[in-house]
Amino acid sequence: MAVRLAPPRGLLPVPGVRMAAARAGMRRKPGDDVLLISVGARTRTAAAFTRNRFRAAPVQIAYAHLARTQPRALLINAGCANAGTGRVGYQDAHSVCATTAEALDIDVEQVLPFSTGVIGARLALSAMQAAVRECASRLSGDGWDAAAAAIMTTDTVPKGASRRIEIDGAHVTITGIAKGSGMIEPDMATMLAFIATDAPVGDALLRACLDRSVNASFNRITVDGDTSTNDACVLMASGEAAIDPLLESGDERAERLGAAISEVTTELAQAIVRDAEGATKFVTVDVSGGASETDCLAVAYTVARSPLVKTALFASDPNWGRILAAVGRAPAEHLEVSRVNLILNGVPVLTQGEPDPDYTEAAGAQAMGADEITIHIDLGLGRHRATVWTSDLSYDYVRINAEYRT
Amino acid sequence: MAVRLAPPRGLLPVPGVRMAAARAGMRRKPGDDVLLISVGARTRTAAAFTRNRFRAAPVQIAYAHLARTQPRALLINAGCANAGTGRVGYQDAHSVCATTAEALDIDVEQVLPFSTGVIGARLALSAMQAAVRECASRLSGDGWDAAAAAIMTTDTVPKGASRRIEIDGAHVTITGIAKGSGMIEPDMATMLAFIATDAPVGDALLRACLDRSVNASFNRITVDGDTSTNDACVLMASGEAAIDPLLESGDERAERLGAAISEVTTELAQAIVRDAEGATKFVTVDVSGGASETDCLAVAYTVARSPLVKTALFASDPNWGRILAAVGRAPAEHLEVSRVNLILNGVPVLTQGEPDPDYTEAAGAQAMGADEITIHIDLGLGRHRATVWTSDLSYDYVRINAEYRT
Repeated sequence: MAVRLAPPRGLLPVPGVRMAAARAGMRRKPGDDVLLISVGARTRTAAAFTRNRFRAAPVQIAYAHLARTQPRALLINAGCANAGTGRVGYQDAHSVCATTAEALDIDVEQVLPFSTGVIGARLALSAMQAAVRECASRLSGDGWDAAAAAIMTTDTVPKGASRRIEIDGAHVTITGIAKGSGMIEPDMATMLAFIATDAPVGDALLRACLDRSVNASFNRITVDGDTSTNDACVLMASGEAAIDPLLESGDERAERLGAAISEVTTELAQAIVRDAEGATKFVTVDVSGGASETDCLAVAYTVARSPLVKTALFASDPNWGRILAAVGRAPAEHLEVSRVNLILNGVPVLTQGEPDPDYTEAAGAQAMGADEITIHIDLGLGRHRATVWTSDLSYDYVRINAEYRT
Repeated sequence: MAVRLAPPRGLLPVPGVRMAAARAGMRRKPGDDVLLISVGARTRTAAAFTRNRFRAAPVQIAYAHLARTQPRALLINAGCANAGTGRVGYQDAHSVCATTAEALDIDVEQVLPFSTGVIGARLALSAMQAAVRECASRLSGDGWDAAAAAIMTTDTVPKGASRRIEIDGAHVTITGIAKGSGMIEPDMATMLAFIATDAPVGDALLRACLDRSVNASFNRITVDGDTSTNDACVLMASGEAAIDPLLESGDERAERLGAAISEVTTELAQAIVRDAEGATKFVTVDVSGGASETDCLAVAYTVARSPLVKTALFASDPNWGRILAAVGRAPAEHLEVSRVNLILNGVPVLTQGEPDPDYTEAAGAQAMGADEITIHIDLGLGRHRATVWTSDLSYDYVRINAEYRT
């Protein structure tokens, strides 16, 4: 029951990036649950990992491998997170990397493993090794749509986005896929995202593009405030496009590439919220007029995370008192009640901290009845702004999360 | 559907404290919704108020009145929070204080008003004034049980507790009532609590007793992480008991009084969690072995607030990976994964950060099937400890909060 979200169709191939998916059977949902992505030797890779201190075995290995080599392959499986599995989990993850390295004739350290699914369960080792070999035998540049489907867990819709821009008269492509629909919060929470471009990009610029795009997208969404043990966002640049290398952040060409990457990650991040577990609304919390961006974010996140606000959104109830209470307890440094304006989908509710004289329950109810809602809070103190996307809290959120393992 | 919670019966009268309840009709639930508490001229009062920056009109007035006088009356209404009501709400709250002062022949500043219920609605002024006059005409020392019922909102069970101790050969009584079942979190969230003793207590000691008892009780519970605009905890000492005044914190007599007050507030706080909106489980999160109490609290609250942990508790699912993920993202300064032990109702799950070799899903499922569950997390780093109480997250939480105003 995703909110206005269709599966991606015709994701654009990225020269230099090939992939294939197969089924190992670790995910109950039918279809492929293992994805292998293979990239050429010129590819540069940057990645951001979960900051959760219980990092799953594959996260530990991916982090270590990336620090030592330029990766040539990403191996992703859905259905089993291989987290909380101790030393044997680490050995399992290393073992599937070794299988991948052998199948592709690369070093084991050139393989980055990623897992998502139930915590505490072990990988089905031989099934996964068979799936890896199958994938390696039929890699293709056209597999993005299938790849988006193979990494899903509780997702109901595959998530992908592409952009094509022109740099120096040549086409440059950016395509990304992501999974995630719960345990979502900044710092890379239960989500995996893989973005590739064929632009030739230097390491420092690639890192800057990743940080900028993650900060504007995956670090601006919240579903339930939970973050996970496994999450990662990977940005790869194959270097196959026939243009001069992009090296400097200030460069106008680099700027356009960075903007296009951010567009892709923002579309993916919003897709995750649209497909949030049990979501019936897509909600934008837009906080303006803050004395700092930190204050704006503090207010936006406190509102976006409030279970009382989220259940009111689910009920289409213009219970603005709950929004006001959330604003009031936000850990913002500067907040003056008598300056605050609250506008729900264009309907002024509070003006200068007081009920707006023209506000009616009927207007409020109509605003909250929409399936896309913008909660605009103006703090009236400065010129900073921050936007966060979230969903409502429904019966289905409880059902999905109470039944996930059973 | 409260978890093992019965209404209080036979709450002990506190000499010097009289009360009455009546109906103004602002709460939909039938029965009295206005409570008047009247105390003698020797009474000393201390109070803690919500730290939400959107403080309701009655909170602002109670705070100001308490700063200037020794209160003689508390006026409480349920069903309407008189919050987010702007200047007219302030005038309304002042007006019912004036009615109370007139009816009891005291100064208006000797009245502290308290409101709880829907935010944004105005008080039904004339109905409330009539209820106040009715209450003033039939004050009695025996009204605690009825008082506990009159302040309820979404509560399903009235909450009260009494203790009687002996000091210097004389009986000293402590009785308290509270309301609250959602929007519950430290810093006095959607809860009201009124505790009275007949001990003669000096102002500084009274404040110390209040702070100590609130910190050990109301500031250790969480239902949904939301805090409100209206909450308060009031501690009154009527001074009627025939003992020498208690003045010093170090004093053994004062120590025993303080301990008894903390027992009352802890029973009230746990009652609020047992009656949490939609709760089917009463959950104790006990974190030991921390390098500091702050670290223990950070871990305890992160686990206790996690919607994924709470839905797993609702499902009786030993999905310990969610607890582990919550521990891993807790903002504790010192946390070493390889030192962490996790024990669910006595069943070791993680030992030194690894799955316990003797753990079985069957044992985990049995532990999680209980309606009282202790999640014990030992951080293995120090000798500090903190305990937090919470509930699960059920379909009924969503239903109650989606339907609250409708």
